[in-house]
Amino acid sequence: LPLTGIDLIFRQVAAGEADYGVVPIENSTEGAVTHTLDSFLDSSLKICGEVELPIHHQLLSNAAELRAIKVVYSHRQSLAQCRQWLAQHLPCVELVPVSSNAEAAQRAASEPGSGAIAGESAALRYGLPTMASNIEDIPENTTRFLVLGRQETRPTGRDKTTLMVATHNQAGALHRLLAPLAEHEISMSRIESRPSRMDRWTYVFFIDLDGHAEEPVLAAALQQLQQEAALFRVLGSYPRNLEVTDR
Amino acid sequence: LPLTGIDLIFRQVAAGEADYGVVPIENSTEGAVTHTLDSFLDSSLKICGEVELPIHHQLLSNAAELRAIKVVYSHRQSLAQCRQWLAQHLPCVELVPVSSNAEAAQRAASEPGSGAIAGESAALRYGLPTMASNIEDIPENTTRFLVLGRQETRPTGRDKTTLMVATHNQAGALHRLLAPLAEHEISMSRIESRPSRMDRWTYVFFIDLDGHAEEPVLAAALQQLQQEAALFRVLGSYPRNLEVTDR
Repeated sequence: LPLTGIDLIFRQVAAGEADYGVVPIENSTEGAVTHTLDSFLDSSLKICGEVELPIHHQLLSNAAELRAIKVVYSHRQSLAQCRQWLAQHLPCVELVPVSSNAEAAQRAASEPGSGAIAGESAALRYGLPTMASNIEDIPENTTRFLVLGRQETRPTGRDKTTLMVATHNQAGALHRLLAPLAEHEISMSRIESRPSRMDRWTYVFFIDLDGHAEEPVLAAALQQLQQEAALFRVLGSYPRNLEVTDR
Repeated sequence: LPLTGIDLIFRQVAAGEADYGVVPIENSTEGAVTHTLDSFLDSSLKICGEVELPIHHQLLSNAAELRAIKVVYSHRQSLAQCRQWLAQHLPCVELVPVSSNAEAAQRAASEPGSGAIAGESAALRYGLPTMASNIEDIPENTTRFLVLGRQETRPTGRDKTTLMVATHNQAGALHRLLAPLAEHEISMSRIESRPSRMDRWTYVFFIDLDGHAEEPVLAAALQQLQQEAALFRVLGSYPRNLEVTDR
């Protein structure tokens, strides 16, 4: 069920219209997808899994040739990831960021003289010919997606856990918050900060840890950590880098 | 000297075309300006100061009335900050993110049927009438700007210091890196992570601390911290929230 925005995916899963949703969380070149992080502030959905996918970008268009293209639609991150190719091959074209690559393909399919940067599945879905393949600047470009659901996920033995926390506003607060993790030798693979949207210049941290929150060592560390935190929520414990086998 | 992008500002200051440059680093609603953070990875410029400015957005256009506007240009963050106003007053208009609000005003001045979201100074510079004032959704909306220069700044007694650091890839590495700060009771007001652009899923951290790097306590803490870091650079020590007195 392709949807045109991250908000919609959160809403459809929360409303039970879909069992699971897949949202981008981080690109290896462009960093965090802040819109997805911020969506967790107002959502009680759980993270059930993650998928890493190599990102290949295609230029899709009904135009007869490259120079007939006057405008290219894509998500801001995809435009950024093809910056060099676009500067070389389509220097005079207007680049218009839209809310998703699905929306970009939809527009390109209906507007003559336009193109979209999107994946192959969009080419098939909207019947758009591929005018150039693998136009991304960095060949190892990978995006990590999260699988959202309404229930918790059982331990598999190779899990990770994502927390959303805030510290009290004191010297050394973040260091104290992380102390139980260091004591229990729990590896933190990622920390991202976002505006809390409460007081100005206060932050919420998104932290990825190795292990499942039901494992005794991690459970003990989290209990200690929670006592230091002004805000504490386990967004989910889920299998690390789920492999995609069904395609 | 208004320039149309963050890259250009870094380049002009580095080349000596300008003594100082002013770049946005963080908005109280939308968070870090990742483009500015990433620019420090390839630059040896120093941070000399910071300025916090309340952000008011104006809708500028030569159009005779609101409904004559078909397209609105602005920086992505400004469009995001006026989302509710735009949905209410210009629901059918195309919103086109451009690289800066100066560029948006430039376009709106030359294209009939278009408008820009920008500040009052742009209205004056490009001779554009203000069609609606203070259209930002959150009235306390503030952006913090950094002043870039080529030399270091002397202590004033009310300074902050920004570091760019990377950890070794080990359990507890970030906790160990922050330990000297906690030991010396140095307050960390902010930590942001960005992709390192070296190995996939490795990060560089941007850390703001209270104090000047030449003060003995902070100097001692930084020396310890540097020993734990895989990458360590002081981007600058500079007066906290410089007041704007010359306008």
